[in-house]
Amino acid sequence: MGNAAMIDVSLTHEIDNYLKRLFPICRSITGEGNRETLRILQEIVPLQVKEVPSGTDVYDWTIPQEWNIRDAWIEDEAGRRLIDFSDSNLHVVSYSEPVDAWLDWDELQSHLHYREDLPEAIPYRTTYYNLGWSFCVNGEQYEMLRASKGKLHARIDSSFSDGSLSYGELLISGRLKKEILLSCYICHPSMANDSLSGVLLTAFLANHLLAMQEELNYSYRIVFVPETIGAIAYCATHEADMRKIESGFVVTTVGGPGKLGYKQSFDASHPINRIIEQVFQEKNIDRVIYPFDIHGSDERQYSSQGFRINVASISKDKYYEYPFYHTSLDNLDFVRSEAIVETLEIYEKVISKLDKNIIYRNKMPNCEVMLSKHDLYPKTGGSFLPSGLEAALDARLWLLFLCDGGVSLLEIAEQTGLSIDTLYDSACEMENKGILERG
Amino acid sequence: MGNAAMIDVSLTHEIDNYLKRLFPICRSITGEGNRETLRILQEIVPLQVKEVPSGTDVYDWTIPQEWNIRDAWIEDEAGRRLIDFSDSNLHVVSYSEPVDAWLDWDELQSHLHYREDLPEAIPYRTTYYNLGWSFCVNGEQYEMLRASKGKLHARIDSSFSDGSLSYGELLISGRLKKEILLSCYICHPSMANDSLSGVLLTAFLANHLLAMQEELNYSYRIVFVPETIGAIAYCATHEADMRKIESGFVVTTVGGPGKLGYKQSFDASHPINRIIEQVFQEKNIDRVIYPFDIHGSDERQYSSQGFRINVASISKDKYYEYPFYHTSLDNLDFVRSEAIVETLEIYEKVISKLDKNIIYRNKMPNCEVMLSKHDLYPKTGGSFLPSGLEAALDARLWLLFLCDGGVSLLEIAEQTGLSIDTLYDSACEMENKGILERG
Amino acid sequence: MGNAAMIDVSLTHEIDNYLKRLFPICRSITGEGNRETLRILQEIVPLQVKEVPSGTDVYDWTIPQEWNIRDAWIEDEAGRRLIDFSDSNLHVVSYSEPVDAWLDWDELQSHLHYREDLPEAIPYRTTYYNLGWSFCVNGEQYEMLRASKGKLHARIDSSFSDGSLSYGELLISGRLKKEILLSCYICHPSMANDSLSGVLLTAFLANHLLAMQEELNYSYRIVFVPETIGAIAYCATHEADMRKIESGFVVTTVGGPGKLGYKQSFDASHPINRIIEQVFQEKNIDRVIYPFDIHGSDERQYSSQGFRINVASISKDKYYEYPFYHTSLDNLDFVRSEAIVETLEIYEKVISKLDKNIIYRNKMPNCEVMLSKHDLYPKTGGSFLPSGLEAALDARLWLLFLCDGGVSLLEIAEQTGLSIDTLYDSACEMENKGILERG
Repeated sequence: MGNAAMIDVSLTHEIDNYLKRLFPICRSITGEGNRETLRILQEIVPLQVKEVPSGTDVYDWTIPQEWNIRDAWIEDEAGRRLIDFSDSNLHVVSYSEPVDAWLDWDELQSHLHYREDLPEAIPYRTTYYNLGWSFCVNGEQYEMLRASKGKLHARIDSSFSDGSLSYGELLISGRLKKEILLSCYICHPSMANDSLSGVLLTAFLANHLLAMQEELNYSYRIVFVPETIGAIAYCATHEADMRKIESGFVVTTVGGPGKLGYKQSFDASHPINRIIEQVFQEKNIDRVIYPFDIHGSDERQYSSQGFRINVASISKDKYYEYPFYHTSLDNLDFVRSEAIVETLEIYEKVISKLDKNIIYRNKMPNCEVMLSKHDLYPKTGGSFLPSGLEAALDARLWLLFLCDGGVSLLEIAEQTGLSIDTLYDSACEMENKGILERG
Repeated sequence: MGNAAMIDVSLTHEIDNYLKRLFPICRSITGEGNRETLRILQEIVPLQVKEVPSGTDVYDWTIPQEWNIRDAWIEDEAGRRLIDFSDSNLHVVSYSEPVDAWLDWDELQSHLHYREDLPEAIPYRTTYYNLGWSFCVNGEQYEMLRASKGKLHARIDSSFSDGSLSYGELLISGRLKKEILLSCYICHPSMANDSLSGVLLTAFLANHLLAMQEELNYSYRIVFVPETIGAIAYCATHEADMRKIESGFVVTTVGGPGKLGYKQSFDASHPINRIIEQVFQEKNIDRVIYPFDIHGSDERQYSSQGFRINVASISKDKYYEYPFYHTSLDNLDFVRSEAIVETLEIYEKVISKLDKNIIYRNKMPNCEVMLSKHDLYPKTGGSFLPSGLEAALDARLWLLFLCDGGVSLLEIAEQTGLSIDTLYDSACEMENKGILERG
Repeated sequence: MGNAAMIDVSLTHEIDNYLKRLFPICRSITGEGNRETLRILQEIVPLQVKEVPSGTDVYDWTIPQEWNIRDAWIEDEAGRRLIDFSDSNLHVVSYSEPVDAWLDWDELQSHLHYREDLPEAIPYRTTYYNLGWSFCVNGEQYEMLRASKGKLHARIDSSFSDGSLSYGELLISGRLKKEILLSCYICHPSMANDSLSGVLLTAFLANHLLAMQEELNYSYRIVFVPETIGAIAYCATHEADMRKIESGFVVTTVGGPGKLGYKQSFDASHPINRIIEQVFQEKNIDRVIYPFDIHGSDERQYSSQGFRINVASISKDKYYEYPFYHTSLDNLDFVRSEAIVETLEIYEKVISKLDKNIIYRNKMPNCEVMLSKHDLYPKTGGSFLPSGLEAALDARLWLLFLCDGGVSLLEIAEQTGLSIDTLYDSACEMENKGILERG
């Protein structure tokens, strides 16, 4: 059994089922595939599906027409279907125009993508804001097409129409109006790690937060958006809400076989990065630390000047870093539900600590509180205490000394070497006795 | 002769006499023993004795009734006095209720403290805010009591009565309203290092400051209080005065045979800590540095949020750290007057530098002052100066450059490598010439 | 040819000619020699010559009477001219009173300076604000005078008269009102490195800036002043102008055979020091870093509290540091025009970067700009870019992320590892597209 025994088997089983159902769906930045995905996620958590109409201006961008695709193929003159969209939705570059034409190899060639360096894979490509059409194929298919005699029939049965961009949203209220953001992106077709794994982790993490809602300090804003345009649309339509966000996560690439790691938010000294690091250290887990980079995912929007939210990402096989990234090999052989659960547990622990990182104020700031009067002090003075009592006393005394309404429990933890969990318990005890108040 | 020749023999002799007179007195947080102690200290310095009545509320605390004790013993049925308060005032837990009862061993046992790990010592215990009574005994006495046949007669002739808490206070005015605090505690019965040594050092340090009062920049507030409740009472009754305090010292455990050291104030970068460290370095004395800890002495009150005064302690065998701490072995064999004088000299040097750590402003901030016009420059230009003149010139030029009313002489010393003493002399010279003014 | 081929031969030739014309002139803090020097410099750049009358109060100082000297010598009774001002204008201490007297050796001796440690040199001395007269001689001359029989005839045909202190000034306007200061001193008689080299470098650097005036961001204030009193006079008569200065250079001792180096301005973290260091690193040139010191040149005035301008000096054989400093051996054998050109090129590169160190603001701070819309993004998404395009994209994305009107291009360069030159080009491109604006 060993470590495997630690994993919640029913949870991995459940995630497995959702991976299988969600993987084949053809998602993009708009379209029916995204709505179907959100409907399935509603089985896990009660997220609301919202729509932003095509043509809506969102800052420097405009919501594009909705793109839907029914079928696509390349056939030779003998009617053999050499490339078939129904085999893999990666075969068609996302947002390709419809086409129905007989072409020479020379003409077709400029409409083909393949990866010379990874011939067994079909690459993943998009042409969102640049009209055109292309197929993506693996090396063998490329050679087969090249070797084909006569003309080839390229057919893409896609359509553009005024419609809307769809996203999912779930708000979980804690005691505070200040929010933590969880964002994942639902715009990738059949790719498992990037980022179906992140979408499922987010849904189950949301589920976990709902279950413990009574205890939450912060409120949680959880969004399922198409990457870039969806995040931009969300910011543009929720400007006031975004001001409430204290920090957040973009949840992506959390289910690969490789190493755990995290991309820091833009301010490396921000509590979110210190808490992630603390959790990895407490769990004694080796991890890759990726400093903030301007390339990445939707932290590019959330951390932009207008919002400047510190957004981090905890990952297992981070995007950009694994060889199968953005190819058909990022599939259900690559991603395992156990890996997703492993990353989920780290997210849960990080959020548990982040949620406790609040600010207290000592209501009796002049000299020491008389602890014995409040039943907070061992009875006989003049000698040393057993170490358990000493530790509890330490937490109380440091909190009384440091909680001035301007310093968070994380800072107190770092200064004193006490854990944020211990400090939080002690602060709650003294809050109940009317000695501390939330600052 | 050697090093011994460096010590002021008449001073050590004087301290020896006071140690012998003050050691036997039974002090507590209130009572006649404290008043007698303060009266004897008045022979050294003109401190004023003040009283805070029992029942006075001081923040979260209340001044307790006065506790006085006349006698106490444990006798066996044969009338043998097995434990006798007159042998050691540590035998009775401070603030024990009166008792006069014949008890079985089983009953008596719960009223006895001894140190299994240090059987030759009588421990020191208190029960200030928790009614009860107990005896403290050494291991041999404990065994003797246990072996005793028949009942044992426990007698404590103590009393509680409305009275007051006594403390001593001495204010020494310098040129500035800003104050330095010196605080020691007078609540311990017969214990020599903790903190009779600190009480005597404070008295002789006060004497030294009085002698040089003409030269003092800062004012000095010197208090002799019972620990915790006395310091709290002092803060509560001197709130406005406390705001004038720049930094301070709790003087305690300064006379042991062990190593010199200091406990830093809560802000490790505060001038008080930097100056203490500088003095130890200049004197090339090995020392133990104790970072600020929330456990300790009256810095817990003075540094609490309401006051936030940086308070350090220079010690020789710091409390908590030596094995005889809070036992009858912390006696006049353990403490020597030469050790107290050694620590006193460090305090004097630290305070001398602290007193010079003031802020100047260059009254002529535009371009350089014409030093030659003010007789501050050597006469022939165009060449190098002898090193003595060069150093004096350095001090002048740096002071003119840096004294902008916002930077202290300590900071200038640290930035330039010149000593605060040299800078102070130079600043005074330029102050007299009307070029610098106190900022 | 080798490295020599890199040097602009016509420039070194031109500098050589000016060195030869300017070296022999007897300059001081006032007088005709200074005016003649400024007139010759006007052949290089159109500087304006201005005068501050004798007797003008400038802060703690007063402009002295003008000193002019026609001739000076020491003759023996046989009429032999043992010391002759026409051999070297260093023979007479600057600002010596007129004298015409027959003296014994004993009397004369107190009016002689020579360098026991460097007997082959005539030392350079001044007596600006201290009436008197002296001759400076080398060791051989000193011995000859001492060995001379009979009286010696000392003659200095100098005069003091109400006149003025002369300085040169050139203002070059860039787009910004903020200025960079270039200051050199013209008060030294026949000394080549200190600071005739600096005077010529400044003139040719000014020439270079005039040629590229169209492209300049900052404005440039270039002054040729007598050291100390001239800089003080300039500050006192240009107080409002001085407030516009962002940072500056005192250009001196730039033509020796020794190592390049720079004296940091008083704030070691100021951009001027970071940019100088960056240029030396980019050029992979070994250099001596001299931390700010209160001794030095006119940074003593410009950096004084009233102005607090960060002023650095790039040097080749810095004053104080070479053995021939302030002697007749600091001559045209010691200084070479190639060395001056080498230092000039560093100054030009430093100023080029400093001039680009401006602040931009992203006019579209909410989420990312849609780069493709502005023709700033490569066309096919979903894959990696060639490294050249990636680097250009990096610069754009980082600028959009970081340019918030509060951070300079230097800071962005240091944070991202991109060069300030690349960032500046990219910022200009986006400024032209209306995306960034100068902040």
